[in-house]
Amino acid sequence: MLSRKPRIIIVGGGFAGLRLIRKLAQANAEIILIDRHNYHTFVPLLYQVATGFVTPETIAYPFRKYLRSIKNTRFIQAEVQKVNFDAKVVNTKAMDLSYDYLVLATGSSTRFLGVDGAADYALPMRTLEDAIAIKDRLIGNFERASLCQDIERRRQLLTIAIVGGGATGVELAGSIIELVRDTLAQDYPNISTREVRVILIHSGTRLLADYPQDLSDYTSKQLRRKGVKTHFQSRVRKVMPGEIILDDGTVLEAAAIIWTAGVEADYPQPKNQIPTAKKDKICVTANLQLPGYPEVYAIGDVALVKQNGEPLLGIAPEALQQGTAVAHNLRRQLREMPPQPFKYFNKGKAAIIARNNGVAYLFGKIPLKGFAAWLMWLVIHLYYLPGIANRFVALGRRLRDYLTKERDLRQLFDYQNIKQSKLISMSKNNSVMASKK
Amino acid sequence: MLSRKPRIIIVGGGFAGLRLIRKLAQANAEIILIDRHNYHTFVPLLYQVATGFVTPETIAYPFRKYLRSIKNTRFIQAEVQKVNFDAKVVNTKAMDLSYDYLVLATGSSTRFLGVDGAADYALPMRTLEDAIAIKDRLIGNFERASLCQDIERRRQLLTIAIVGGGATGVELAGSIIELVRDTLAQDYPNISTREVRVILIHSGTRLLADYPQDLSDYTSKQLRRKGVKTHFQSRVRKVMPGEIILDDGTVLEAAAIIWTAGVEADYPQPKNQIPTAKKDKICVTANLQLPGYPEVYAIGDVALVKQNGEPLLGIAPEALQQGTAVAHNLRRQLREMPPQPFKYFNKGKAAIIARNNGVAYLFGKIPLKGFAAWLMWLVIHLYYLPGIANRFVALGRRLRDYLTKERDLRQLFDYQNIKQSKLISMSKNNSVMASKK
Repeated sequence: MLSRKPRIIIVGGGFAGLRLIRKLAQANAEIILIDRHNYHTFVPLLYQVATGFVTPETIAYPFRKYLRSIKNTRFIQAEVQKVNFDAKVVNTKAMDLSYDYLVLATGSSTRFLGVDGAADYALPMRTLEDAIAIKDRLIGNFERASLCQDIERRRQLLTIAIVGGGATGVELAGSIIELVRDTLAQDYPNISTREVRVILIHSGTRLLADYPQDLSDYTSKQLRRKGVKTHFQSRVRKVMPGEIILDDGTVLEAAAIIWTAGVEADYPQPKNQIPTAKKDKICVTANLQLPGYPEVYAIGDVALVKQNGEPLLGIAPEALQQGTAVAHNLRRQLREMPPQPFKYFNKGKAAIIARNNGVAYLFGKIPLKGFAAWLMWLVIHLYYLPGIANRFVALGRRLRDYLTKERDLRQLFDYQNIKQSKLISMSKNNSVMASKK
Repeated sequence: MLSRKPRIIIVGGGFAGLRLIRKLAQANAEIILIDRHNYHTFVPLLYQVATGFVTPETIAYPFRKYLRSIKNTRFIQAEVQKVNFDAKVVNTKAMDLSYDYLVLATGSSTRFLGVDGAADYALPMRTLEDAIAIKDRLIGNFERASLCQDIERRRQLLTIAIVGGGATGVELAGSIIELVRDTLAQDYPNISTREVRVILIHSGTRLLADYPQDLSDYTSKQLRRKGVKTHFQSRVRKVMPGEIILDDGTVLEAAAIIWTAGVEADYPQPKNQIPTAKKDKICVTANLQLPGYPEVYAIGDVALVKQNGEPLLGIAPEALQQGTAVAHNLRRQLREMPPQPFKYFNKGKAAIIARNNGVAYLFGKIPLKGFAAWLMWLVIHLYYLPGIANRFVALGRRLRDYLTKERDLRQLFDYQNIKQSKLISMSKNNSVMASKK
């Protein structure tokens, strides 16, 4: 197992990490991917898991399968707890690993912005587990409402409040309306779709604030037409079980409260050694390196990357391009050449409002809306799906849905009754892995 | 909502319950299906969930979807806690329901036969949650083994012990070997398939005891050829974490211990009012009625049904035929005619050993083995799958697997971190539902 090749450790197998690995497939290095999950999460389709349209497995691609054809890379399922940047060692529960180069691509997690009760009673929307919990809450509340004859309580059970008017909030709102209209209307003969309320609470003056005003207006109008009630310039003061209180004192009774409002960067200790900015994001150099540590990179949602003085948004195309850029820089460093600055080419972004409807903003200048934007989104995202088989499954299902408006995924599994054993920590004596350069 | 129709309550939506509902679709009655889950579990494919071949959703068919086309039947998700046979009332947490006719089709659950530690440390295999837990344990142990350099510990992590040599044990053993050979061999470059051990522990002298000797012998030979180690006439004395002790004192180190050895009937209180036999099964009359309660039936795995003095086995075809028979009897009772005795027509049974390989015993006299038996199993089970769409999805996946030997389902989700809210019990005042005859 001894090797003289330089070791590159990549922490996190999201869009940035996987692209980096693919671009380094021919590199003469020993590459190790560490992730706490054994699968890549295809985040753009999370809202479809949350609304019962695709199974969790459809958007969770196993790393080991991805790596089969990439011979220079190994996978370790572990949680990185600490990095010693001076000793160049990564600490996990199971083992310590030394590195020659390190790439932090650890993404972000939900941030409840200090709102009282939000962490306890609102449902976040960042991970697959979050999405499954939302789906279960939605379907479970319909089951409860169908048995409930108390009008007040029934109204509460049939109200869904979404906090945050970014792409995730918009996509969830539209998709929940579709879930209600297409499927639940048929399944619950004693619930009228008019009893269901979807409320979108947004702190800003318009939805999708990083899109042109025209597209924001279009989005609000479309959602309102579908029956979504929007609250603009509203901040949440407090979340309680089944209740949300806005800062103007408004009390909304909602048995499902979904939180899409904040994110913060998510990376190992020690945080105080890392220069950070807003949302805890890691400040990087123009080459995407950690200042003072030219062998350490940070990319994707964990990093604060600026272009022309403006921070990037933290969307998938940015992460992918950063993965490519760091692969390029690492290959240069391996050949003793200096790394080069990252330059983002803005191909555009898109958000879905509903089946056949969306908004897109291409190359930072071309606005699209309606069916064309939806189709654009579909093609882009199918293209990015990491596995060919998954791509076809997802496409097939989307087409089937498009034709039949059918959603099968409303099974309520009893997850608390799944006997699970945590990954066991092994004696570190057995498993120290040193780099052997 | 008032109705003068007689009310039939069916508790349990397994094979027996669903068949009954379908056969009563035209009956002039108010029918209520009560189940603790909101989906039907297609039990014969559970072992394929446990070995990562189909998603849990594939074999979990939502009741409400099934009932869309059946206008006289409503679904209530609830756990039946008690039945008052004299007052003709079913008690659930959320509400009490009176009935004119009641059918108990509540199935069975795992029975650990009083073996010390089995309930705590062995993984049962009756529900979807059980199957998910097994899959997670298998894949999780491979992840652990790939990090483990202690030879003893690694051997333990790579040993799977299955208790019980009935159809479930056989199918699991064969399917686990395939999981190892086809998929894990490619995914874990530092684990050799020769390190993996699958042990089948059986108390009897031969596997599949209710099949002819010839088919049992064939099954043992096939499993042994695939590398399964069989222990016959072995009883388990004790189960400990990662260890199983047989009654001859043999200690087997196995990080995955799967329990398929015992079942017991599973039905509401009060059990002491119900005449029961071996395995707690409900003794029924020849007409499948509860003795002394002509308006109450028990069918499927919960009932002890005899034919020619011999008890039936508790397999799906029996449950389906009992559903049909009770539908017939209820229709007769609704027209003031006496019910008729149930007669089982033995079409046969089949068990899978591996891809392309199985055993079947048709009409109680024709033995089949190998590919023909496997194909028979496949056709029969696809035919029984309750939804057309599911049927095609399942068939498509099986064909894909048959061609590519590919299994994608090895994602380890963190089920303990899914925020779940239990079905809320509502004030009974709001929700007493009386029958209005």
